[in-house]
Amino acid sequence: MTAIYLTQVLHRAVQQVPDKPATICAGRSRSFRQLAERASRVAGMLRGLDVHAGDRVAILARNSDSYVELLLGIWWVGAVAVPLNARWSVGEVAYSLADCAAAVLVVDDFLLQLVDEIRSIATHVRHVVHVGDASPAAGIIPYEPLVSSSSAITDDRRGDDELAAILYTGGTTGSPKGVMLSHANLCGGATARLAEMFSPRDTVVLLVTPLFHVSGLFRLVMQLVLGASNVIEPGFRPDAVIEAIERHGVTDIVLVPSMLQMLLEEPTFDAGRLSSLQRLSYGGSPMPPALLDRAMQALPHVGFCSSYGMTESSGVVSVLGPFTVADREAMGKRSRSVGRVGLGAELRILDAEGCDVPPGTVGEIVLRGAAVMKGYWNKPAETAAALREGWLHTGDAGWRDEEGHIYVADRLKDMVITGGENVYSAEVEAVLIAHPAVSACAVIGVPSAQWGEAVHAVVVLRPGTHADSQSLRDHCRTRLAGYKCPQTVDFVDGLPLSAAGKVLKRRLRDEHVSRATA
Amino acid sequence: MTAIYLTQVLHRAVQQVPDKPATICAGRSRSFRQLAERASRVAGMLRGLDVHAGDRVAILARNSDSYVELLLGIWWVGAVAVPLNARWSVGEVAYSLADCAAAVLVVDDFLLQLVDEIRSIATHVRHVVHVGDASPAAGIIPYEPLVSSSSAITDDRRGDDELAAILYTGGTTGSPKGVMLSHANLCGGATARLAEMFSPRDTVVLLVTPLFHVSGLFRLVMQLVLGASNVIEPGFRPDAVIEAIERHGVTDIVLVPSMLQMLLEEPTFDAGRLSSLQRLSYGGSPMPPALLDRAMQALPHVGFCSSYGMTESSGVVSVLGPFTVADREAMGKRSRSVGRVGLGAELRILDAEGCDVPPGTVGEIVLRGAAVMKGYWNKPAETAAALREGWLHTGDAGWRDEEGHIYVADRLKDMVITGGENVYSAEVEAVLIAHPAVSACAVIGVPSAQWGEAVHAVVVLRPGTHADSQSLRDHCRTRLAGYKCPQTVDFVDGLPLSAAGKVLKRRLRDEHVSRATA
Repeated sequence: MTAIYLTQVLHRAVQQVPDKPATICAGRSRSFRQLAERASRVAGMLRGLDVHAGDRVAILARNSDSYVELLLGIWWVGAVAVPLNARWSVGEVAYSLADCAAAVLVVDDFLLQLVDEIRSIATHVRHVVHVGDASPAAGIIPYEPLVSSSSAITDDRRGDDELAAILYTGGTTGSPKGVMLSHANLCGGATARLAEMFSPRDTVVLLVTPLFHVSGLFRLVMQLVLGASNVIEPGFRPDAVIEAIERHGVTDIVLVPSMLQMLLEEPTFDAGRLSSLQRLSYGGSPMPPALLDRAMQALPHVGFCSSYGMTESSGVVSVLGPFTVADREAMGKRSRSVGRVGLGAELRILDAEGCDVPPGTVGEIVLRGAAVMKGYWNKPAETAAALREGWLHTGDAGWRDEEGHIYVADRLKDMVITGGENVYSAEVEAVLIAHPAVSACAVIGVPSAQWGEAVHAVVVLRPGTHADSQSLRDHCRTRLAGYKCPQTVDFVDGLPLSAAGKVLKRRLRDEHVSRATA
Repeated sequence: MTAIYLTQVLHRAVQQVPDKPATICAGRSRSFRQLAERASRVAGMLRGLDVHAGDRVAILARNSDSYVELLLGIWWVGAVAVPLNARWSVGEVAYSLADCAAAVLVVDDFLLQLVDEIRSIATHVRHVVHVGDASPAAGIIPYEPLVSSSSAITDDRRGDDELAAILYTGGTTGSPKGVMLSHANLCGGATARLAEMFSPRDTVVLLVTPLFHVSGLFRLVMQLVLGASNVIEPGFRPDAVIEAIERHGVTDIVLVPSMLQMLLEEPTFDAGRLSSLQRLSYGGSPMPPALLDRAMQALPHVGFCSSYGMTESSGVVSVLGPFTVADREAMGKRSRSVGRVGLGAELRILDAEGCDVPPGTVGEIVLRGAAVMKGYWNKPAETAAALREGWLHTGDAGWRDEEGHIYVADRLKDMVITGGENVYSAEVEAVLIAHPAVSACAVIGVPSAQWGEAVHAVVVLRPGTHADSQSLRDHCRTRLAGYKCPQTVDFVDGLPLSAAGKVLKRRLRDEHVSRATA
């Protein structure tokens, strides 16, 4: 007798807005009626492949309308979706498939070439289904003919605390962990966010962050709960994003800071082409204030929303805004906060002993609420470490003001401890990025015989500019305490990014150590 | 490891808006910090009275700020609140107390006089606590001194599917049934409604429908989830309501149609005094179109919201609006709908065989979703009849249009079947109330040898007007099919109303039968 199930939103949309576009992708628009009809046949296809309630179905693909109907078809048949990171190595993909013992793997054209290698490792995958135009090799089932020939099945409406998805994370921290999210987690989180950032039903979102990442998946669920339209881009290309916003009258977009920067630097960027855009949400990694300034001035009609969340909290748990460039002065420092913890969640900030710290003091952010994950698949020790007495320990260092506005200082593991002082890498990065020659940067702690750790910066310069280590350190010295300033600076052509656009600091640290010991 | 708990909203409000008024009642304002502090001591008081998780604590009182802190204190200690209907007879109250085996009963001044009689029947009640100014008799514990002397206890944060409240219903249908509502039911329903009818955090609601009724309790939970202020009136007095709106800048109010009519007829009514009012929600019984017209014209600045729900669905599940008199023409017939089923719920309309009927056809409204009750306390047969395969059978006859707007035709049990034709009493009442001499009316089916049932009207005339049976039947004849027109009309001074303002049709039918057989 489930009460909360992700297909519920589809049934309601069919009753209320049957002919409204649910997905717009690659020049093809499908209504909610068509989406429901196809999802019911995808469910039939999966049942035909012997998939039953609780079985895991993995998807290794870029964003598409097929991805959306696959997710809904998986939920329709009561199975668990495992959206895999399309940028991962074969080893990481195979590890995740084996970890959750996926019965079926769905791949698109882009990733078809990896299938043989994946299959040779993940031998328990019973069926591989291919979505796309390429001709698959023998032993791989073509998707479209099978969906067309499958019959719709009845929706058993499974949900509540049953698993809806397992999202593997680990781009920045060791071996992948499967975050278990239930129907109640995803629906509860999405409804709570809608209650805070009121979205009319005529919202049109551009899904450009990957659906295999919680930011894309969560925004999709929000749109489905609302019965609103989704324009889908297979990946982030700044020119294509501008084109899609203009063509489809997109009102809402979610971007990570690195995407926002690429958008502003795109030669075809023109605020007039983005006139339909009403809200731009950002999160996933710290937003450099200089980048936010530039974006808000370039897009004065857009309401910006700063958000905070993680896979383990089913996505966003706090939102600041929307606010425009006109609102910003009155907000003062608060525009750097990630807002207040939202409906359906409780937040505390704890010291190392687990006691609450007062406003203004940095501690670990812990969370509790409807959207907090059920745990890590198959990893009881990691689950027990993350979920203690009902509280999710986020690993983020932060503080709150007297009115509950939250400021994220850093990932605890990205915090540099030098000579006994805590240095928040995000703070140093915000200063570096404000230098006119710096296009991107990352600050890490590197081993130091004298200080334990030393502050080290890795910098990408803007084309046609120049800066050396000394000039950047001088720039920092006038803006930061001495111990916070980078002792060493490396110049590189680009930073290693995760699929979600986060800098892979673990890789930077590993590279630094290898070089130092080489 | 609960994720959804009603005290969560209190902890969040203390972190974010500690000094904002949570309750304003009888000239006394208490902030969220004070409310949390008192709720934690009410919990300590209850623990001192040997109340533990899952125990039932009954409240027999009119609305007050103490009522609010009692509810939160009960949830803080993990117990179950049983708000009892303050208008019920001693027999009904004692039945409910015995049915749920309440350990503690809290009463206010107004109901103190009934305690001895109640206690003589409900002998298992361990403690009676008295809130108020009167001097209680021996054996009754005074509330305020005990709260003051009790220590705060730690919130165990119990919630999710555990019971938060048992609401006894039955004013219109046989012996009282205890509707079991969980923390997830009340929080889920409130969050979903907030997502649809965006309420800014500076909303000020006037709680005037009783907190022992789901309409009052649900609106309180919505305000708490939002961290917004509650002005509390002990009962509905039109002059006091106008005064409270003006004095406290009330923005939102929930009224049943009979209250709205009394408000408009109040001699001190003046739209200028209600200038702060932004939204007026109505529901609970059918809204006569003539009354809605009159109210919208009298309050052209107010957005009206038509809502539909019941105790078994934790309150409102669909909302139309807010819409003002200026919007109404464009809405056409739709202004008579109760909106579309909201987030977190799915609605179907079924025929007698349990099959879906097409748009435009009347059937029974069935519901499924996060806010649907867990069942009736101690009544497995009634629970099985109401909840079938996860669907709540509402007993309401209704239909939907092509875009999912819902129209409630009647309570199935209030439908009159005459000569094989279905007559919806609400339809006939809407025609009668439009007659200038009719102040209130109810249409019921009465036994008829010829037709099975005959349509019978009970009418209250406006003071100073005149109409007889024939003139009312003539009025109906020009507007309704012949078989729908009342065959007989009784004139009375007033209609029996439940505490929620609903006409007690069962009593009217019983009285008619007694008179006919006398």
